[in-house]
Amino acid sequence: MIEITLPDGSIKEFEKGATPMEVAKSISEGLARNVISAKFNDTTVECSTPLTKNGSLTLYTWNDKEGKKAFWHSTSHIVAQALEELYPGVKLTIGPAIENGFYYDVDLPEGNISEKDFPTIEQKALEIARGKHDFEMRDVSKSDALKFYKEQGNEYKVELIENLEDGSITFCDHDTFTDLCRGGHIPNTGIVKAIKILSVAGAYWRGDENKPQLTRVYGISFPKQKDLTEYLELLEEAKKRDHRKLGKELELFTFSQKVGQGLPLWLPKGAALRERLEQFLKKAQKKAGYEMVVTPHIGQKELYVTSGHYAKYGEDSFQPIRTPKEDEEFLLKPMNCPHHCEIYNTRPFSYKELPKRYAEFGTVYRYEQSGELHGLTRVRGFTQDDAHIFCTPDQLDQEFKEVIDLSLYVLGSLGFEDFTAQVSVRDLENPEKYIGSAENWEKAEQAIINAAKEKGLDYVIESGEAAFYGPKLDFMVKDALGRHWQLGTIQVDYNLPERFELTYKGSDNEMHRPVMIHRAPFGSMERFIALLLEHTGGNFPLWLIPDQAIVLPVSEKHEKYAEKVLKSLEINEIRALIDNRNETVGKKIREAEMKKIPFMLIVGENDESSTTVSVRRHGGEDLGAISIENFCDLVSTEINSTLKSFKE
Amino acid sequence: MIEITLPDGSIKEFEKGATPMEVAKSISEGLARNVISAKFNDTTVECSTPLTKNGSLTLYTWNDKEGKKAFWHSTSHIVAQALEELYPGVKLTIGPAIENGFYYDVDLPEGNISEKDFPTIEQKALEIARGKHDFEMRDVSKSDALKFYKEQGNEYKVELIENLEDGSITFCDHDTFTDLCRGGHIPNTGIVKAIKILSVAGAYWRGDENKPQLTRVYGISFPKQKDLTEYLELLEEAKKRDHRKLGKELELFTFSQKVGQGLPLWLPKGAALRERLEQFLKKAQKKAGYEMVVTPHIGQKELYVTSGHYAKYGEDSFQPIRTPKEDEEFLLKPMNCPHHCEIYNTRPFSYKELPKRYAEFGTVYRYEQSGELHGLTRVRGFTQDDAHIFCTPDQLDQEFKEVIDLSLYVLGSLGFEDFTAQVSVRDLENPEKYIGSAENWEKAEQAIINAAKEKGLDYVIESGEAAFYGPKLDFMVKDALGRHWQLGTIQVDYNLPERFELTYKGSDNEMHRPVMIHRAPFGSMERFIALLLEHTGGNFPLWLIPDQAIVLPVSEKHEKYAEKVLKSLEINEIRALIDNRNETVGKKIREAEMKKIPFMLIVGENDESSTTVSVRRHGGEDLGAISIENFCDLVSTEINSTLKSFKE
Repeated sequence: MIEITLPDGSIKEFEKGATPMEVAKSISEGLARNVISAKFNDTTVECSTPLTKNGSLTLYTWNDKEGKKAFWHSTSHIVAQALEELYPGVKLTIGPAIENGFYYDVDLPEGNISEKDFPTIEQKALEIARGKHDFEMRDVSKSDALKFYKEQGNEYKVELIENLEDGSITFCDHDTFTDLCRGGHIPNTGIVKAIKILSVAGAYWRGDENKPQLTRVYGISFPKQKDLTEYLELLEEAKKRDHRKLGKELELFTFSQKVGQGLPLWLPKGAALRERLEQFLKKAQKKAGYEMVVTPHIGQKELYVTSGHYAKYGEDSFQPIRTPKEDEEFLLKPMNCPHHCEIYNTRPFSYKELPKRYAEFGTVYRYEQSGELHGLTRVRGFTQDDAHIFCTPDQLDQEFKEVIDLSLYVLGSLGFEDFTAQVSVRDLENPEKYIGSAENWEKAEQAIINAAKEKGLDYVIESGEAAFYGPKLDFMVKDALGRHWQLGTIQVDYNLPERFELTYKGSDNEMHRPVMIHRAPFGSMERFIALLLEHTGGNFPLWLIPDQAIVLPVSEKHEKYAEKVLKSLEINEIRALIDNRNETVGKKIREAEMKKIPFMLIVGENDESSTTVSVRRHGGEDLGAISIENFCDLVSTEINSTLKSFKE
Repeated sequence: MIEITLPDGSIKEFEKGATPMEVAKSISEGLARNVISAKFNDTTVECSTPLTKNGSLTLYTWNDKEGKKAFWHSTSHIVAQALEELYPGVKLTIGPAIENGFYYDVDLPEGNISEKDFPTIEQKALEIARGKHDFEMRDVSKSDALKFYKEQGNEYKVELIENLEDGSITFCDHDTFTDLCRGGHIPNTGIVKAIKILSVAGAYWRGDENKPQLTRVYGISFPKQKDLTEYLELLEEAKKRDHRKLGKELELFTFSQKVGQGLPLWLPKGAALRERLEQFLKKAQKKAGYEMVVTPHIGQKELYVTSGHYAKYGEDSFQPIRTPKEDEEFLLKPMNCPHHCEIYNTRPFSYKELPKRYAEFGTVYRYEQSGELHGLTRVRGFTQDDAHIFCTPDQLDQEFKEVIDLSLYVLGSLGFEDFTAQVSVRDLENPEKYIGSAENWEKAEQAIINAAKEKGLDYVIESGEAAFYGPKLDFMVKDALGRHWQLGTIQVDYNLPERFELTYKGSDNEMHRPVMIHRAPFGSMERFIALLLEHTGGNFPLWLIPDQAIVLPVSEKHEKYAEKVLKSLEINEIRALIDNRNETVGKKIREAEMKKIPFMLIVGENDESSTTVSVRRHGGEDLGAISIENFCDLVSTEINSTLKSFKE
């Protein structure tokens, strides 16, 4: 008999050789129907793998990340079989699961695969899946494995096997298909009900551009056809909401080859939107007792040697800036904290003056390889809504709570309702990895957990995920398409106060080290605006959107009145445009819809005589003819309902 | 007879050998009394120099820059004589006039000169001056000159003479003193009525640190004792108003050795002041049709090669930033214009859409040698209140006027009332030095001059002072101490539109080049704030000053009421502090005076019972007890009287 520990801590006895599937059955028939993969003592196993010793077992269904991984990895075997049947002589290389689906890199004997071939591949793969073939792992000797692939003439698999140790090599069979594989499959092919080939791309063998180019076939699969349909709709919607596409359409930002990749240029509408976001946060921060500072975008290399950033990032980042005499070296600042530490160091502080909260919309520069750049989410220069709080260890608890309050206020004001928090704490088994006393760490971790609890956050604690300098809390936001984004962060830091020798005079008249909190509710202006674009599809909250209203005269005759309306709106601080082109109102409305303008004010004969505007909301709702004054009230009421003051 | 042309263009005949003094006498006795130096055909001459050919003559008095130069240079001879008498064996080297006064570098036989010796030197020099000795120039042969100084054992003068050509060497005598000198003296020592030795410093012979160290004696002199008194008062006042001193006292900004020299760190009060200035200008600019943009602080080297900045400044500035793979090179941006050109190039424009006015508070970085750095006026990183206007040549006239309006509004709102403008135009004799058609230049120069005239500016036109890319207008501001500062600039540019191939579609459906205007009413935030500090002595306009009021409870008993007053002020958006230390009101007032806080609100028994505050203005004026509401009204009335909206 063996003892199997389940995730809830319960221990069950099974006969030696029992499989995860049998364990599942012993729990419930429902679970057994849904279980598709398992982990035994930190190793991924099949549902059919005999368990031969005591250990911990986790069972996975489609709803688990690990379950999806096994599902998609297994589908890559099915698709590989389909490719072998459709493209005789194709050489398989590797086929892993990825974040959304899987790929298989293959060496085609001739020609290529194009979009028109996708349905054929999908059909063939589904045909195989419907055969309900079991995935079966077996051990093979290195020599047998090499023989198998040498006979096929597949030099890629031969190369892979040559790097493996005899005794650790396994093949996975299903139907007539065999693949070199470490395992991690679903029980049988029949579970896969929907398969979609998404795209093909070129990829070098082992990512090395000096090696042969292969064809990478991307796909995804689901246990229900409905799931696939939904996924494809989501994909379509995501494409429409791609912030790079919307950013261009709404004229928010651009990139210039001459200025450099990854360095956004903010166009007027985008710069004004940024400014509104900044002013919004500045106002809340002022109320929360922050003080703004301004620091340069460079600092002497020595500054980052002191902070430790140079040792950590120096080599892989933008290189030092020399001066003509070569007697000085500066670095583009990758972080604002060293500068803020130097501001703190300008004068001595008493404990009575703490906390000091220095905030800055600080633009930082970090080198990213050009291949890694992506719109506004992966850039080389970005503006952090940064702040550093210098406080006594005793103040940490309260400060952390207030930072959470501020972060929740920011997320709420921008229409994010669904978020979780991850609290990263020490690995208690390796205390030597961390700077700062165990007592302070304990205090800080408890402060964070207490704060998260008290503020009603949905949080998980991740042991060993803390940075060496302190524990932290990260916000994960779920967007309108159900995707998760890591946003604002709150970090405790015991390291920089040490390195910069920061002090304050305590009530005991002795000098002490303050604790630092780094925090950024937006994270960065660039990433946040990208996320907001994708979350809202460009339909920003009314207080934030570039143009709140557009005046559409039905004909040239009403242009003057339209101008008058525009003037009234401007006086009432409503951001509005006029479209007095010689076009039909229908066309003007369609274009205003494209531009995501929340209110269209159509003005014609009746409106002019009764000094009203006929209001149409973005999306089509008709609010009828109302006075300009009432329209202004409507706008301000709507804004006030979503945008409260901080701690109102 | 010779013909002498005077500055007014008139020509007079004189006998050959007539001196400038005789010319002065022929004009008026008054002029003859005041003339102290002269220029003949671009050469500085003495008043006693015989004129032997036709030529142009300018006569200088103390009121001319050239007159002061002769005055101070002559005084350096007098002081040198005094030093020879007081420090036998002293070796003289050089003694030029400088911007304010003169210096003489001497090699002392032993010991040094300290402040306590200054009166003795001054007395001795004045004694000599009172002798009314004529300054007399004479030619000497190189061999005689060398012999003279070799006998004295003065190796410095020997070295100087060795580098001169025989036939061009002159000595100047007065009293018993002789000096090697090119000339440029006042008629006699008696004109110098007041002499002040200001300081001594070390200086290397010929500025070379491998050569002997000399003692540099700085001094200044005046034709009236009263002038000296005034000058010393001004110097004292300037010292008090030094923006570096005030910036530290008022906690506006600081520098950090670790961050780097010339890179200001803006402390909370300074950053908030900057923000107020920025918001003030943003508001006016919005009204004037500007659009804000945001661009990165670096750009690829190629960007500045295109703009021409790299060829011009590259070698002498911050060096390129490389990436780890060394495949890219970036530069810290020295100017914002290339980035704004790239923004303009994002999409095509029709003439109907022009002018486009892109504004940015853009932080730029320019290398300055560390010896050149000075507080906020000479830094390595600064934020320009920059904007670039892209318009058609026909719009230039109107745009220029509007920029002048904005600049005058900015200067007026900040309390500058005394300024002049310099219009820099082409050198018509060298048209090949300029880019752009003669027709456009003519148009632009006329536009600037018309605008300056129409706006009632006190301007001078400087031929040949235009940049190669276009004419410009610079504002010169006179501060409270009568010093002149170059502030905002407005420049026309035909070059960058060409280099960046900017276009717009004209009404003729053809593509044309727009014209660019660069402008910055503040110049830079750093320099402007420095100037404002020195101009106001830290007593900023009420709307701008960091703390507008301070509440001073007369005793602990009234602290609660003081807090209540503070709260009311905050609600009324008055920036206020409280001083509830256990100190006397007298001391609190003295410190509030030091901090330049405009209003002190003293609260005691009577105030609390009648809910008033006893208001004391900075400087001492007592406004008596008034209600908090009335105080708030008083503040807003005062602000509204100085700070109007733009184009109100």
